[in-house]
Amino acid sequence: MLDMEQIGLQARTASRVLIQVSMDQKNRALDTIADVLLAYTDAILQANEKDIEEGRVAGLSDALLDRMLLTKSRLAHIAEDVRNVMQLPDPTGEVYDATILPNGLHMHKRRTPFGVIGVVYEARPNVTVDVATLCLKSGNAAILRGGKEIKHSCAILGTVLQEALQSAGVPSHAIQVIDDPDRALVEKLLRLDTYVDVIIPRGGAGLHQFCREHATIPVITGGIGVCHIYVDQAADLNMVVPIVHNAKVQRPSVCNALDTLLVHRAVAATTLPAVAEELLISDVELRGDEESLALLQAAGIHNKHVVPAQADDFGTEFLALVLSIRVVDSLEMALEHIAQYSTGHSEAILTKDRESAEMFVRSVDSSVVLVNASTRFNDGAQMGMGAEIAISTQKLHVRGPMALRELTTYKWVIEGNGHVRP
Amino acid sequence: MLDMEQIGLQARTASRVLIQVSMDQKNRALDTIADVLLAYTDAILQANEKDIEEGRVAGLSDALLDRMLLTKSRLAHIAEDVRNVMQLPDPTGEVYDATILPNGLHMHKRRTPFGVIGVVYEARPNVTVDVATLCLKSGNAAILRGGKEIKHSCAILGTVLQEALQSAGVPSHAIQVIDDPDRALVEKLLRLDTYVDVIIPRGGAGLHQFCREHATIPVITGGIGVCHIYVDQAADLNMVVPIVHNAKVQRPSVCNALDTLLVHRAVAATTLPAVAEELLISDVELRGDEESLALLQAAGIHNKHVVPAQADDFGTEFLALVLSIRVVDSLEMALEHIAQYSTGHSEAILTKDRESAEMFVRSVDSSVVLVNASTRFNDGAQMGMGAEIAISTQKLHVRGPMALRELTTYKWVIEGNGHVRP
Repeated sequence: MLDMEQIGLQARTASRVLIQVSMDQKNRALDTIADVLLAYTDAILQANEKDIEEGRVAGLSDALLDRMLLTKSRLAHIAEDVRNVMQLPDPTGEVYDATILPNGLHMHKRRTPFGVIGVVYEARPNVTVDVATLCLKSGNAAILRGGKEIKHSCAILGTVLQEALQSAGVPSHAIQVIDDPDRALVEKLLRLDTYVDVIIPRGGAGLHQFCREHATIPVITGGIGVCHIYVDQAADLNMVVPIVHNAKVQRPSVCNALDTLLVHRAVAATTLPAVAEELLISDVELRGDEESLALLQAAGIHNKHVVPAQADDFGTEFLALVLSIRVVDSLEMALEHIAQYSTGHSEAILTKDRESAEMFVRSVDSSVVLVNASTRFNDGAQMGMGAEIAISTQKLHVRGPMALRELTTYKWVIEGNGHVRP
Repeated sequence: MLDMEQIGLQARTASRVLIQVSMDQKNRALDTIADVLLAYTDAILQANEKDIEEGRVAGLSDALLDRMLLTKSRLAHIAEDVRNVMQLPDPTGEVYDATILPNGLHMHKRRTPFGVIGVVYEARPNVTVDVATLCLKSGNAAILRGGKEIKHSCAILGTVLQEALQSAGVPSHAIQVIDDPDRALVEKLLRLDTYVDVIIPRGGAGLHQFCREHATIPVITGGIGVCHIYVDQAADLNMVVPIVHNAKVQRPSVCNALDTLLVHRAVAATTLPAVAEELLISDVELRGDEESLALLQAAGIHNKHVVPAQADDFGTEFLALVLSIRVVDSLEMALEHIAQYSTGHSEAILTKDRESAEMFVRSVDSSVVLVNASTRFNDGAQMGMGAEIAISTQKLHVRGPMALRELTTYKWVIEGNGHVRP
């Protein structure tokens, strides 16, 4: 079994060197990573093929096998993403909150890498490279642990990444990929609080829960989105159909896709039928409460994809073409519903009323709260932050997209001239 | 046994109301807390007397009993601190990082309370009031759990605080004090991740470790300071004695007090004897490495308080008039020593050389790094941040003093005009 203490110490030691490495040199390392990924394409695809074969024997679903699969073009795309990260500005070194205290002490915050980041993810080999490059760009050492289903891919990618680092003169332990499938290693990683500063899980709710349960290191959880749109009494009715359709249909398998539509009773009869018609065209299954079903029926909408909502259809992240619908009496009732069922990811109100919008923004406790826009905008690239490593739904340090800047912390620097405390 | 789920739910519900409560009303509640603390002085002191008596029977040390003790004047001071917190500016509501995206979406961050904060502390009844008022001022609900030694004090303070909240029209569950001494309740609190957003331990290393081990909620650890001063080759020798003396002697029992002095060999002979003489006058025990002891001896300093350092004298937080001393060959060796032994709290370099100072600031991975100033300045009040709830030595969200602003998070607000994602 791998010695995780040793791996932790190596990461910490590498992180201390990384802090001295110039952005130029880190960028050269990133460039080399892209080169090496392309140069070793055949070997990487062969290892990946082993994972796919073993996965097929183990009876993994086609969807999962597809997520595991690397192809020549996918690998080329991954290498291109590495060069995109290379182009992004250096997130470290920024000086801010500078001030001179009355006693003459100069004080500022300086943005600096976390140090060592542990990332635990599932059966997606591309995450190995994504995460490694974002950590390197931000000056952090990374310990990566992918799902056991991709152990062959992880092994070769780990080797290739370290070779690139070494040839670029960056400590190769800056990126360490754990390819041993023993689950006990993950538990050890989660308890390496002497060496690891933060744990970022990437995957489903089970993985996040596992990390929270076992870690002695702060965990940035997120990525689970039970997302709501509330159509207010004062909604601009022209916006309702396009926004709801976009939020639900554009990419239903992701965390910022819509799960539950709440509609104010005063506009339910005028909006729900049009929304339903459009969604049914896109094969969305509608699970409505009693009142919304009655309204749809009254509007002459009879369809096998319109069914009564069960209790657990509220508070479920569908990740599929399914939408639950509820008619509410008031903004307050919508806020109650959201407080009860939301995972704090993305919630939107559609309204022309400034006061209702402000009430919604103030009350909804989510990483991104939207007014008259699709929930699909809770995304690092869409929000102009560049590539993201995760979307946080906890409240420490970062909420919403976690991009390069969010992979840094700060230190206070205080400069005196012989100052002693009186 | 108390139902911690119920307490968590009550806190979460109160936090949702708190977010709507104006700063005026919160300030009125703080004012009422101060009034009520004074009005109930006799009852509070009686309860505290029970704790003290039971503590005496249990054989607690005089130092601990003194920390547990409330007196009329201490209580008056606590009430005054509440009114000081009342005067501080509102940390919530601030809008920042506002931008308009190319697609016309308006986007900003808005500072907002965490929600619910869990604080676990030791046998200091004053912490109950300090923490409750800082949480209330920042719009957070708080669940407080003090040491079992002060259960009677906690019980009466909990009652008094809730009475004040109620009479000021603020939900009384905004502050809940757990006075049941059952340790299992702490473990439950640390796992209430559905309701509690962050855990802040206040106490010794054991308490912090316990919280890290058992929490499924992010823990802000800190307050443990193995602090170093490095006297560089290019130090201004006039600064050395006053800064080292201040850092060690002014208040040796606190976390930002000096523990280890590192001196560059080139200036060891000229500085160490003067430092030692001054510290010996203040009854500091000096535990030196071989080289520093030889230098002191050569300078004619013979004193029973000058003794050889043992291995564990480096990396120990003394919290007493003890200082370990080591002569180093270079800045690099000082950095190595600090990387090995520091707890990431406060580290200082004394030097006139800008390059050495920059190298030190860049390399030392501590919450506050100081140049030519005493480590004692790592303190919320000294840094102009107002009252602090803790000093963080972890790297998520906050490093160094955690004052009102650091008790908040942000949410992203995105406003569109019917925007859908292309």
